[in-house]
Amino acid sequence: MPMMEEISENQIIGQIAKNFPVSPFKINKIHEADAELINLGGGFEKYLALTTDALVEEVSSGLYEDPYFIGWMLATVNFSDLAAVGSEPLGILPAITYPPDRDESFLTQLARGISDACRELGTFVLGGDTNQGNQLFLSACAVGLVPKESTISRIGAKPGDKLYLTGPAGLGNIFAFLHFSKPESNLPKSFYQPLARIKEGKSIRRFGSCCMDSSDGVIHTVDTLMRLNHCQFVLNDDWDNILHPAALEVCRAFHLPAWLALAAVHGEFELCFTVSPRKEKNLQDEAAAAGWTPVLIGEVREGAGVAIQTSERLIAIDTTLIRNLSSTAGSDQQRYIGQLLEISRKAGI
Amino acid sequence: MPMMEEISENQIIGQIAKNFPVSPFKINKIHEADAELINLGGGFEKYLALTTDALVEEVSSGLYEDPYFIGWMLATVNFSDLAAVGSEPLGILPAITYPPDRDESFLTQLARGISDACRELGTFVLGGDTNQGNQLFLSACAVGLVPKESTISRIGAKPGDKLYLTGPAGLGNIFAFLHFSKPESNLPKSFYQPLARIKEGKSIRRFGSCCMDSSDGVIHTVDTLMRLNHCQFVLNDDWDNILHPAALEVCRAFHLPAWLALAAVHGEFELCFTVSPRKEKNLQDEAAAAGWTPVLIGEVREGAGVAIQTSERLIAIDTTLIRNLSSTAGSDQQRYIGQLLEISRKAGI
Repeated sequence: MPMMEEISENQIIGQIAKNFPVSPFKINKIHEADAELINLGGGFEKYLALTTDALVEEVSSGLYEDPYFIGWMLATVNFSDLAAVGSEPLGILPAITYPPDRDESFLTQLARGISDACRELGTFVLGGDTNQGNQLFLSACAVGLVPKESTISRIGAKPGDKLYLTGPAGLGNIFAFLHFSKPESNLPKSFYQPLARIKEGKSIRRFGSCCMDSSDGVIHTVDTLMRLNHCQFVLNDDWDNILHPAALEVCRAFHLPAWLALAAVHGEFELCFTVSPRKEKNLQDEAAAAGWTPVLIGEVREGAGVAIQTSERLIAIDTTLIRNLSSTAGSDQQRYIGQLLEISRKAGI
Repeated sequence: MPMMEEISENQIIGQIAKNFPVSPFKINKIHEADAELINLGGGFEKYLALTTDALVEEVSSGLYEDPYFIGWMLATVNFSDLAAVGSEPLGILPAITYPPDRDESFLTQLARGISDACRELGTFVLGGDTNQGNQLFLSACAVGLVPKESTISRIGAKPGDKLYLTGPAGLGNIFAFLHFSKPESNLPKSFYQPLARIKEGKSIRRFGSCCMDSSDGVIHTVDTLMRLNHCQFVLNDDWDNILHPAALEVCRAFHLPAWLALAAVHGEFELCFTVSPRKEKNLQDEAAAAGWTPVLIGEVREGAGVAIQTSERLIAIDTTLIRNLSSTAGSDQQRYIGQLLEISRKAGI
């Protein structure tokens, strides 16, 4: 059975977390949800949802450079984890460390990015911490509430469930590909500026069976859901519908296999979720009423592993290899892309 | 009137925060409390208390080197902010970025330090984030609850109030002084390992008028309380009682003016609080019942500024100058200590 511990990132988390005292008020176990759910007691009808995320490699590699965009993404990565448990956000607390050579306008733009991402979601900056340091470093904590009678986590998928995204995928990977491999592309700022799927998460918590955000790309997400739910996760090869048109266009222009726009580690912050066939119509109606359109990307089957179903055959994808690449290739982007292309060639897709 | 904006750190915070959307559910305004208090609605009888703090200069300067101690302090700085609003902690979420050259035992020791600080306070690690990066970087978010009918903030001191600490002071400053100026000292690990004053904060919220932790040292803390409460804060010169015996001993050995053990920016994480004379007896009884002893350090008077009362005269302390030193002297510790000694010489104390 594919284990969470086959993924090197999870080994490190396990190593760090094994001595931590675990709260009796925490609902989910480690890895089981994008955000932690805490029972506050006192008859309160909601769980507290908590998450913390730092922007590390995205900033140190130069992928995120514009201060407004950095601020926007700091908020998005944290609120996206709340979205994946169906939580309404209460707000965010950013911790901002900046080197003395960053001018006032850098900090102002950074703050505007955080503020605008909050305003777009109708939420707030609750507090924070600022420090001067020898390099830019950003983390944050997001906090929200979710009704006790309507929660969702990464656990709950069953064979027969349909696999969905909250929107077309691939822009996260393609944005990183163009940034590192085609720096002359000069992308418009609107190309990639994801918004956490809070509204969508509230629909999914009612009818979905499991949910996780695609912050690390769709393949990484599906791999985690596969390991946690002990089922096989099968993607369709309907790339025209699964991929964002702009991602598909770049794949075609540079002769990249379409599925690789799901395979690298920089995601699009859609929610990836499963739904039982008997609740599929409810989910679709609820989504339509809330103003969004679920994108069918595959299904859950008995078995294990991640595969892609074409009209001719079922192609197994070695997602352990793919996931550990992003740990071992380090910051060498060309090598990383080369290794993904080699995996694609060998799989014949 | 001394303004918060005279302090360069506060100018930067104001610059960053001015565009942030402010939550209607947040009880305190900016600067008014060590942790943010949030009304969760739904008839819940408690406020949520939230704080985030990163360990930046303490780590980059080498003041915190041992991984167990770093982990302990990461928890302490965050829980101490909860203590200062009288909150019972629910737990902490650390965000740990570590360079690939740190071995497994470093991370294990770091995690043990966090765990032990939690266990000592009867609280938990609720979640977290780990990343590899080019240098060690640590932040965390701590979360707690405080009864709505019994909260405390930095606001509420009145002329006539007595000024207290939860324990003798000075070890934080002296620890930093010995580390940077007398590296041959070879301090035992027990010399400085502060524990957040959660128990004490619960006594203080019932009878105190304002409260703030001394994470930046007593003088910095008293200066902030002075600015926020528009009163004069006067310290006694009863150093034998105010200073920790080990801090006093170091001051004597190196001919340092005793009050300077309160003046530098690395604190001892005691709570600094005021109490009205008519509630002083209640506070003392409550503290005795809870097993701690308040240390009287001064009083609040009509007026403005921070001063030290000796048997002969009232010596005004230029706390604006002292506080901005820690921003302008940067990481040059010898220059910083030299400037503090010069301020002491000029004040004649």
